[in-house]
Amino acid sequence: MQVAMGKPSLLGYRMPAEWEQHKQTWVGWPERPDNWRNNAVPGQRAFVEVVTAISRFEPVTLCVSSLQYTKACQMLPSGANIRVVEMSMNDAWFRDIGPTFVVKDSSGKCDDEPKIAGIDWTFNCWGGEEGCYSDWSLDSLVARKILALERIIRFPHGMVLEGGSIHVDGEGTCITTEECLLNPNRNPDMSKEEIEEELMLYLGVQKVIWLPCGLYGDDDTNGHVDNMCCFARPGVVLLAWTDDTSDPQYQRSMGDLSVLSTTSDAKGRKLEIIKLHIPGPLNMTQEEAQGISNPSGSAMPRLAGTRLAASYINFYIANGGVIAPAFGDKKWDDDAFRVLSATFPEHEVVMVKTAREIVLAGGNIHCITQQQPSSSSSEIPVNSTCVSMGARASN
Amino acid sequence: MQVAMGKPSLLGYRMPAEWEQHKQTWVGWPERPDNWRNNAVPGQRAFVEVVTAISRFEPVTLCVSSLQYTKACQMLPSGANIRVVEMSMNDAWFRDIGPTFVVKDSSGKCDDEPKIAGIDWTFNCWGGEEGCYSDWSLDSLVARKILALERIIRFPHGMVLEGGSIHVDGEGTCITTEECLLNPNRNPDMSKEEIEEELMLYLGVQKVIWLPCGLYGDDDTNGHVDNMCCFARPGVVLLAWTDDTSDPQYQRSMGDLSVLSTTSDAKGRKLEIIKLHIPGPLNMTQEEAQGISNPSGSAMPRLAGTRLAASYINFYIANGGVIAPAFGDKKWDDDAFRVLSATFPEHEVVMVKTAREIVLAGGNIHCITQQQPSSSSSEIPVNSTCVSMGARASN
Repeated sequence: MQVAMGKPSLLGYRMPAEWEQHKQTWVGWPERPDNWRNNAVPGQRAFVEVVTAISRFEPVTLCVSSLQYTKACQMLPSGANIRVVEMSMNDAWFRDIGPTFVVKDSSGKCDDEPKIAGIDWTFNCWGGEEGCYSDWSLDSLVARKILALERIIRFPHGMVLEGGSIHVDGEGTCITTEECLLNPNRNPDMSKEEIEEELMLYLGVQKVIWLPCGLYGDDDTNGHVDNMCCFARPGVVLLAWTDDTSDPQYQRSMGDLSVLSTTSDAKGRKLEIIKLHIPGPLNMTQEEAQGISNPSGSAMPRLAGTRLAASYINFYIANGGVIAPAFGDKKWDDDAFRVLSATFPEHEVVMVKTAREIVLAGGNIHCITQQQPSSSSSEIPVNSTCVSMGARASN
Repeated sequence: MQVAMGKPSLLGYRMPAEWEQHKQTWVGWPERPDNWRNNAVPGQRAFVEVVTAISRFEPVTLCVSSLQYTKACQMLPSGANIRVVEMSMNDAWFRDIGPTFVVKDSSGKCDDEPKIAGIDWTFNCWGGEEGCYSDWSLDSLVARKILALERIIRFPHGMVLEGGSIHVDGEGTCITTEECLLNPNRNPDMSKEEIEEELMLYLGVQKVIWLPCGLYGDDDTNGHVDNMCCFARPGVVLLAWTDDTSDPQYQRSMGDLSVLSTTSDAKGRKLEIIKLHIPGPLNMTQEEAQGISNPSGSAMPRLAGTRLAASYINFYIANGGVIAPAFGDKKWDDDAFRVLSATFPEHEVVMVKTAREIVLAGGNIHCITQQQPSSSSSEIPVNSTCVSMGARASN
C-alpha cells in the first residue's frame, strides 16, 4: 500500500486521544509458551475476556497466526462483534507493534484526501539485545499489515518507539517517560530534544511532558507511561499511586507527581491529577513461573517471586466503555472501579477478572490493544488526484 | 463472523455474472515447489503480471503466506492498486478455494440487510485421495478467512464444489460439466438431481446446463467448465474449440457444442455460441518438468510431455477489462485477442504473456482469481435488528 512522504503534523495530521471515536480495536493473539504459561491457554482466555468486553462497545479485529486461527475462532463467544484475521507475530503486544493512527480533521478543501494515516515506528523488542526475545521480525511487519488491510497510508519512521510509551490528550500534549524514551537501548544517537522534535512532527503535539519514571517492576518496557500515567480527558491525568512509603513504587509516583503538578499542557492548563492506587504488591508465584516453558532461552526468563508490573492505569478506553484490569485484590480492584467510574462518568467501566494472566507476561489491557480512530474517509481513494503529500505507492 | 442459516436463493440472493460490477478481486500467491517450478519464482512473476493487469481496472487483494509476505510486496509494481494481506494456503487457486459471492438486489424493505454473502463450499482438493495434494487443510479455511476479512456473512455448504466448475449468466442460468460435478470423487452419495437442486438453492439459478466434458488434459480438475466454456453475456457463450479432428479435444468440443446448440437458458433463449480456438496443442517440456521439486511425492507428479490444459476460455472479466492468457502461440494468441475483443466491445482485452507458467501448474487466470461483487452495503450492520435470515454469529 501507499507509503507517505513527509511529516504527518505538517500535512495536518494529529494523533487523537484514546477517548475520541474509534472505528475498531486491533488485538493480537498470545501463543508463545516461553512467555505465556501453560501453553498460553490461560492468557488466551484472558484475551477472549478482553476482546469480548471491548466488542460490546465497538468492533474488534483479532489477529491470529495461521496455526491458532481455528482455535481462536472456537474460543470466541457467539454473536460477538469480532472478526478474526490471520496474522503472524512474535508476541501479541499490539499497543507496541501496531501502528499509531493519526487523523486529519476535515479541511473542506478536498474530500478525497485520506483522513487517516498510520505511523509505523521502528520496533526493537523493547531494547534490542537487552529486549524481551531474540527474533522480532514478524512483530516488525504488524503495523504495515494492519495498515495494508485497511488500505491506509503508512508513515514509516526510523526512530525506535512503542505505542505504550506515549499518551496524548488530542489537544497538543504528549506524556511520556524519560526512563523509556531516553534509555540508550532505544535511540542512543538521539538527544532528548531530537526525540521530542520527532514526537511533535509525527503526533502533531506542541508539548511533551517528560515524567522521570514508569511503574516499579515494569522492566520489560523500561517504564512505559501507559502503566504509570494517562490522560482521562484534556487537563486531567490519572497516576499510578501507592500510600506505602516503603514500596519502591512510592518514590516513582512522587517523582512523577512532582513533574505533573508543576507543569502545564499545550493549552497552558495546569493538570488535575487523580491518583489510582496500585494493587498488591503482587509477585509471580512458583506455580505460575513453572508453567512457562523456555528451554532454549529464546525469551527473557520469568522467575518466581518477581514483582509484577500490575497497575490499573493500563486500561483501555473504547467507545463508551473503559476496560480495566482486575487483579483479585478486592480492596484495590473495588477502589479502581470507583475511581474510574467517577473519572469517566459517560463510560461504563468493565473490570477484566483474568487480567493477572496478562501481567504475568509483562503487560496488560492497554498493551494488547490498539484503537483505530473513526475517519470520514478511511480508504485510500482509487486513482485519486488529490493526495497532497507526495505519496508514492509501495507495499 | 456470522454464519448464515437457510438457503441463499430463498433469502433473495443470487450469484451475479462475472461481468457485473466488482468491488475487488481476490488472488492468492503460489509458493509450493512441488507444483510450481523453480521454487515458484516464474509462477510468482506470472501472478504479478496478472494482478498488475487487473489492478488497472479494479482493486486487488493479494493473499500471501507469512513467509512470502515481504517478497511478494517487493515484487509488485509501485503505485498499483493492490493490497497485500497475510493468508496461508496449500496452493493458490482462489477460484476453487475462495467463496462464491452472492448478492441481494435491493428490496427496499430494510436498508440494514446484508446485500452480499459468501458461499463456503466444501473443498476436497479436486478429488480427495485422487486429488492434487495430500493436505488441503489451509485451503479449506480460505473462503472463511476472506469473508471474515470483509465482515461478510458466510453460508457453509457440505457439498464438495470448486468455483471453477460453475459459470452463471446472472439471469438464472448455470453452466457446468458432468465430468466434474458427477465425478464420484466429489459427492458420491448425491444424484445429478440433488446436485442440481443445491446449485439452484445456493446460486439462485433456475436452469442448469450440463455439458458432458471439460477440456482435454484438464485432469487436475476433472474438467472444470471454466477452461471449456463460459458466458460472455446473457444468451452468449464462448466454447473452447479446435478444428483438428485428430485432436482428442475435437470430440469434447463437439459434444458440448451439441448440448449448447439444442438447449435454452433460464429465460428460454437459444444460446449464441462463439468458438474460441485452443492454442497448440502444448506439452510440458523436459526442462519445465525438471524444475519441479517433489521429492516427498506430496503433490501429483508433473511429467515431461504431458498435454497442458491450455485454453483461452480461462480468462477473467474485471470492471472494464478482460484479462486473458497468451501462450506464445502467435497464431492462436492473436486469434483469441480478436475474438475476445469482438465479444467484449466494452472491455479492454489484456493478454498475459507469462500465462504458460500458470498452466504448467494446472490452471490459468480464471482459476487464480475470485471476484467480489460490489454491494451497496457490504458490511454487516453492527447490532442490526434487521437480519432476516435467522443468522447466528460464529467464527
